[in-house]
This record gives sequence, structure tokens and C-alpha cells, in this order.
Amino acid sequence: MRRLNLDLAERSYPILIDGGLLSRAEEILPFLRTPRIALVSNTTVAPLYMDGLVKALEKVGVGVTPIILPDGEAYKTWESLNQIYDVLLATRCDRSTTIVALGGGVIGDLAGFAAATYQRGVPFIQIPTTLLSQVDSSVGGKTGINHPRGKNMVGAFWQPKLVLADTDTLKTLPDRELSAGMAEVIKYGLIRDLPFLDWLEANMDGLLARDGELLAHAIERSCINKAEVVAADELETAREGGRALLNLGHTFGHAIETGMGYGEWLHGEAVAAGTMMAVELSRRLGWLCVADVERVRTLLQRAGLPVKGADLGAARYLELMSHDKKVIAGSLRLVLLKSLGDAVTHADASREDIVAAIEACCRA
Amino acid sequence: MRRLNLDLAERSYPILIDGGLLSRAEEILPFLRTPRIALVSNTTVAPLYMDGLVKALEKVGVGVTPIILPDGEAYKTWESLNQIYDVLLATRCDRSTTIVALGGGVIGDLAGFAAATYQRGVPFIQIPTTLLSQVDSSVGGKTGINHPRGKNMVGAFWQPKLVLADTDTLKTLPDRELSAGMAEVIKYGLIRDLPFLDWLEANMDGLLARDGELLAHAIERSCINKAEVVAADELETAREGGRALLNLGHTFGHAIETGMGYGEWLHGEAVAAGTMMAVELSRRLGWLCVADVERVRTLLQRAGLPVKGADLGAARYLELMSHDKKVIAGSLRLVLLKSLGDAVTHADASREDIVAAIEACCRA
Ligand SMILES: NC(=O)c1ccc[n+]([C@@H]2O[C@H](COP(=O)([O-])OP(=O)(O)OC[C@H]3O[C@@H](n4cnc5c(N)ncnc54)[C@H](O)[C@@H]3O)[C@@H](O)[C@H]2O)c1
Ligand SMILES: NC(=O)c1ccc[n+]([C@@H]2O[C@H](COP(=O)([O-])OP(=O)(O)OC[C@H]3O[C@@H](n4cnc5c(N)ncnc54)[C@H](O)[C@@H]3O)[C@@H](O)[C@H]2O)c1
Ligand SMILES: [Zn+2]
Ligand SMILES: [Zn+2]
Repeated sequence: MRRLNLDLAERSYPILIDGGLLSRAEEILPFLRTPRIALVSNTTVAPLYMDGLVKALEKVGVGVTPIILPDGEAYKTWESLNQIYDVLLATRCDRSTTIVALGGGVIGDLAGFAAATYQRGVPFIQIPTTLLSQVDSSVGGKTGINHPRGKNMVGAFWQPKLVLADTDTLKTLPDRELSAGMAEVIKYGLIRDLPFLDWLEANMDGLLARDGELLAHAIERSCINKAEVVAADELETAREGGRALLNLGHTFGHAIETGMGYGEWLHGEAVAAGTMMAVELSRRLGWLCVADVERVRTLLQRAGLPVKGADLGAARYLELMSHDKKVIAGSLRLVLLKSLGDAVTHADASREDIVAAIEACCRA
Repeated sequence: MRRLNLDLAERSYPILIDGGLLSRAEEILPFLRTPRIALVSNTTVAPLYMDGLVKALEKVGVGVTPIILPDGEAYKTWESLNQIYDVLLATRCDRSTTIVALGGGVIGDLAGFAAATYQRGVPFIQIPTTLLSQVDSSVGGKTGINHPRGKNMVGAFWQPKLVLADTDTLKTLPDRELSAGMAEVIKYGLIRDLPFLDWLEANMDGLLARDGELLAHAIERSCINKAEVVAADELETAREGGRALLNLGHTFGHAIETGMGYGEWLHGEAVAAGTMMAVELSRRLGWLCVADVERVRTLLQRAGLPVKGADLGAARYLELMSHDKKVIAGSLRLVLLKSLGDAVTHADASREDIVAAIEACCRA
């Protein structure tokens, strides 16, 4: 088993990565303040994994209050949050009850925000069951819900006591979701870890075949990379680089997500196409060569990801991108690659180059 | 002007106490990250104080987005919170916008929780306009809303950047609200500050006549006392004493509030009657003498507060008190006085003594 100890300024917690973790209650028990948890999941994940986990926990004397929400980003709302509060109060959960999230990023964000705010904060444990949530939501402590006027507009930073990434759960994950998570995995290689990028090229087929050992390595490298970036820019105050580097492909990608209507493209799919735009623009700035661009394209394609952007027209892209909350005071600050494995933030790309990069990737 | 620097582990911030602070925008300006605030108030306080504050701020170039909520504890809800989020998003407030609360504890708790959760946290400034909120909400960082199933069940800890307690605002506060706040002021004297208790006895008439200098001193001593208690028990983990001491009279008082239906008794009024019960019980344990009890009774009465409990019957009191969230595992842990100015937590009072103390204070 891989055991990562995240050592952020505020609080340190372990991320355990292995197959079969869900049935190993002894890994969870030492992290509970009292033998009482509220287990938040959804109607897709609960039938697959809840029973095993509950049985294992009850065997060691942990009382479990299940809270099962409908599945989908559309339910990452105040109403779902309120459903959680309702059950917590009705079953008299108190400040020592641990809230456990069993599911993808939606369940993690919801349950995490409930933990951050129920009686002003209760302990939280995350059991992410999608690749995306294992490599992204596990690190950084972001929790929250959507508001009708915008995604993730309401939330809090709330660190878990423990993260369990059970690679076995990825066996039931739809292919498209696995690929979407892989876009973020590849991102870590591209922005700061060239050896990992090489490794991903060598092992993509095994990863997609859901080889547990390979997945565990990919998750571990991803979490370490994200943790290093987050730790170096704890308060998101870095003016250059910093946490913003985690947004490679995201400003272009958000334009696709918004332009097509949320839900049409998965986030990871939009990030993949957006990454191609960032890479193409980096080539136009003279930082990457054609072979680099093709290397990225090939890897994303092998991962089952789109490399062609949605055909919104460059003008619409620019309009949507300028609404992105990461845009600082008018200038389009983009994450680009100086070379493969070395990302920078850059605010000086010309409008012409940006348009050309977008168009190249929509035609392709 | 009095300037208190609160130095809690997490973060330090100043509390300014003076008359006329509302028009001194130069005290606020240095604490804004950008010259942009969202000003949350209610339909009672806004007509009295918003105009002056907004004019002062606009004069020094601060843009103000006003958010005016209906008045009352009944509006400390998700719906009001959502109204705040709506305006923040509609007017494109971002992470650097400061949320300012202008009002009593209800507005402070609501606006503070909005600040804690809007885009995962924005800066917060508190301008409390009731005595209760100046002496209680100013210290400790508690924010939150009510849930249909319980008061203050959803919330977060979120420290303000600055607190402005303008004693002039207390001139328009209804007498009953001023007295209710005074119950908490007297509490600080009783639990840990005998010289302050003496001072309150000497100056109660001037305080009720709203003498600015006297009020400023009372607010300052109260905030210092609360800050010292909070700092010594930052994480609310003390098994004896600690933050729990701030609940003198509160367990009995909550029984009155709940038993009579919220809103019938003001919180401070219930605390006053509850304080008499705690004091009477302390006498039965041999810790206070009859003269001590009469001293407390006289001071509370002079402050315009009730010293007779609601006539619910002792059995109903005990039932309601056992539901209080401060009750630990069955045993009724009460805050009692070893002597005036010296509170302790005590879990060993007999049922008979508790019943007798309640009955003595309901008859009285
Ligand atoms: N907190 C953070 O740091 C962070 C980081 C990235 C993304 N997010 C958030 O996460 C969400 C996206 O996460 P996601 O991609 O995991 O989406 P998701 O939670 O919607 O999961 C995708 C789908 O897979 C299903 N599923 C989950 N695990 C499964 C399994 N083991 N087997 C079969 N099906 C399974 C889900 O029920 C859902 O239908 C977004 O709301 C995003 O904002 C948060
Ligand atoms: N966060 C904390 O640490 C903390 C501490 C104590 C109480 N609280 C919360 O505070 C609330 C009670 O606070 P409160 O007693 O200030 O009640 P409140 O906010 O309801 O104010 C009482 C009344 O006075 C009015 N008012 C306020 N300022 C006025 C002024 N200057 N002139 C005229 N009228 C004025 C209000 O509009 C209201 O009608 C409760 O919700 C309680 O849970 C929070
Ligand atoms: Zn992403
Ligand atoms: Zn109180």
C-alpha cells in the first residue's frame, strides 16, 4: 500500500492508495474521534460499494448513518446539502461524528462542505471513487456547492483527516469517466514532471486496462505533484506560476464547458482539448516544437480524450475566456509550456496567436 | 478611542470602540483589500445608519453594494444567505471584495457566514450595533445560520479583519435590547472579573443612560474577558472550565427560551433568569452566601432584567436542559460560581438541589 503524508502548513493527513481498501476498516478506525460516522454517497456508487464498507465498519463497532443522494453535478446544490444536515440533525449526530464521502468529486465536495459547516465543523474522511477525485479532490481541501449563478461559488476550505483511494473502485468506472480523470493525470506530467509524462506514455494501455499497481502509481505521482504545488502557494497569492499552473488547459476548457452547456463535455474532456490549445499556443510562442505538440496529442488520444475543440468560433472562445474567474484585470493570463514538464503563467500572448491556436485545434 | 488588539492563535484583528466611528471611513479604509465592499444590514438598522456610513466610504472612493435583509432572528436562514450570494454574484463581487456587517448579532452571523463561504472565503468586517453583538459576537469568530431543526446548527469559524463598535449606535437601541446585552456584560464580571462587577454596580445608571464613555469601558472589559477565555481554550477542548464558563446562566436560560418558544424571551433576559438559578444553586452548594445572591439579583434588576424564571415546572426545565448541546453524556454539567468573579464547571450537583434552585427562582 502507498501511504502519502500530506504536510501542508495547516494540517497534515495521510492519503492511502491501494486495492481493497474499502474492506479494511482498521485503516479508518484510528482516524475516528468516536465510533460514529455519517456516510454520504449517491444512488450509483452506494449499490456498488456501500454494503461492503458498512459491514466492515460495523464489524469493528462503528455506527453508520447512511445518506444517499441522487447522482449528478446537477445535485451539487443547497438542496442536497440541506438533505445532509437534515439527516445529521434527525439522527443527532454531534461535533464528534465523522462525515465520510464515498463517491466522485460531486459527493466529495458536498459532503466536505457539510463537514465544514455542520455545527461549525466536524471531522471529514474522503473515499474518492473516480480517478478525477482521487488525483484532484484529494489534495487542497476545497469543498463546496454550485449556485444557480455559477459553479463552486459557495464553499470552504476543509481538510480531511484521511483519504482512502481504493484502486479497485475504478474497475466499475465508465470508460469515459476514467479518461476524463486521465486528462488531469497527464496535466501533472506536462506542467512539472517530465519523467512521469514518459512513464504515462509507457503505461497508458495498462492504466486504461485498470491495472491496480499502475493506477496506484499514477494516483500517487499526481497527488504528490498537486501537493507540492499547493504547499508552495498555500494562500494562492503567487503572482507568477503557483497554484495557477494547475489550470493548464482549463481556461480554454471552461470556455468549451460553458459554451456547450455544462454536462455536454466532461470536465476532463474539455481540459484535454484546452490543453491542446495551450500546447499549440506555446508552439506559436516558440517554446515547443511540432514534435512536442504531436507527443501531447498522441498521449491524450491514447487516453481516450478529445483533442479537437468544440466549434464555437474563436470570438466566442475569447468572450467566454474573459469571463473566467482566473482572468486577472482584463489581461488573459494563460498557463503555457516553456517545454514539456515546465509550465508558466503568461499574460502577454497576442490576440492573434490565441485565436490562431484556438482555430488550429478546432479544425484539427 | 479604545483600540483592542485581539491576538488569537489563528489571526489577530483590532476592535475599535468609540462614539462616531461610523463616519470615520479612514478607520476602515486600511483594512480593505480593494476599495469595494458589500454592506449587509437590515430594514431597521439601514435607515438609521447606512446613509452616513455609505457617504463616508464613497467620499474616500470605496464602492458600496448594499444588501438589506428583513429584520429578525426568523430571517437568520439559508434563504437570507442566498439573497446575499445572489447580490454578490449579480454585482460581480470577487474574492477581494470585503463583506461588512452593519447590525446586531443576526446580521453579524449571517454576513459573517456569507463571508466564510462566498467563493470559499472573502474578507469580513463587523460593525455591531447592539450591545449584545458588541460584547459577544465581536470575539470568537462564530458565524452561522439557523436550521429548521435547531439554532446555529450550520456555520463556520471566520475571523473578521476589523470590528468597529460605535457606542453612538446604542442610542437608538430599544431599552429591552440594551438590557439584554447587559446580561452578558454582567456575566463577564460574575465569571472572572470581580473589579468589573464592582464597577458595573457603581455605573449601571450611567450605562442605561447610554453614557458613551461608560459604555465604551463596559464593551472593552467584556471583549477583553471573552478574548482571554477564548484564547485559553482555542479549540474548545478544555475538560474543566474553559470556554464553557461563558455559558453561565445559559443552560437554564436555553430551557426558558425553548420552553416559552423562541422570541418570547430575549436571549439576554433568559440568561439573566438562568444566572439567578445558577447563583441560587451555588449558594445551596455552600459556595455563595445569601448576600452574594442578593447582590446579583439587585444588579440584574437595576439593569432592567428579569430575575424570576418562566413558570415551566422544574421537571420541564430538567427535560429541556438535558437536550442542551452543552450537556456531556447525560450528566448535567453546569457553570456555577465558587465565589463572585470565579466560575467553575460542575457536573455533580444533585437533582434535588437543581430542582430547588429552579423552583426558588420561579417563585421569587
Ligand atoms: N474539491 C476539489 O479539489 C475538486 C477537484 C476537482 C473537481 N472537483 C469537483 O468534482 C466534480 C467532478 O468529479 P467527478 O468527475 O468525480 O464527477 P462525479 O462525482 O459526478 O462522478 C462521475 C460519475 O461517476 C459515477 N461514479 C463515481 N464513482 C464510481 C465508480 N467507482 N464506479 C462507477 N461509477 C462511479 C458517479 O456517480 C457519476 O455518475 C465537480 O463537481 C468538480 O467541481 C472538486
Ligand atoms: N457570533 C457570535 O459569537 C454570537 C454571540 C452572541 C449571539 N449571537 C447571535 O446574535 C443574535 C442575537 O443578536 P442581537 O441581540 O444583536 O439581535 P438582533 O441582531 O436581532 O438585534 C436586535 C434588534 O435590534 C435591532 N437593532 C440593531 N441595532 C440597532 C440600533 N443600533 N438601533 C436600533 N435597533 C437596532 C435589530 O434590527 C433587531 O430588531 C442571535 O442570532 C445569536 O445567535 C452570535
Ligand atoms: Zn480540472
Ligand atoms: Zn449568550
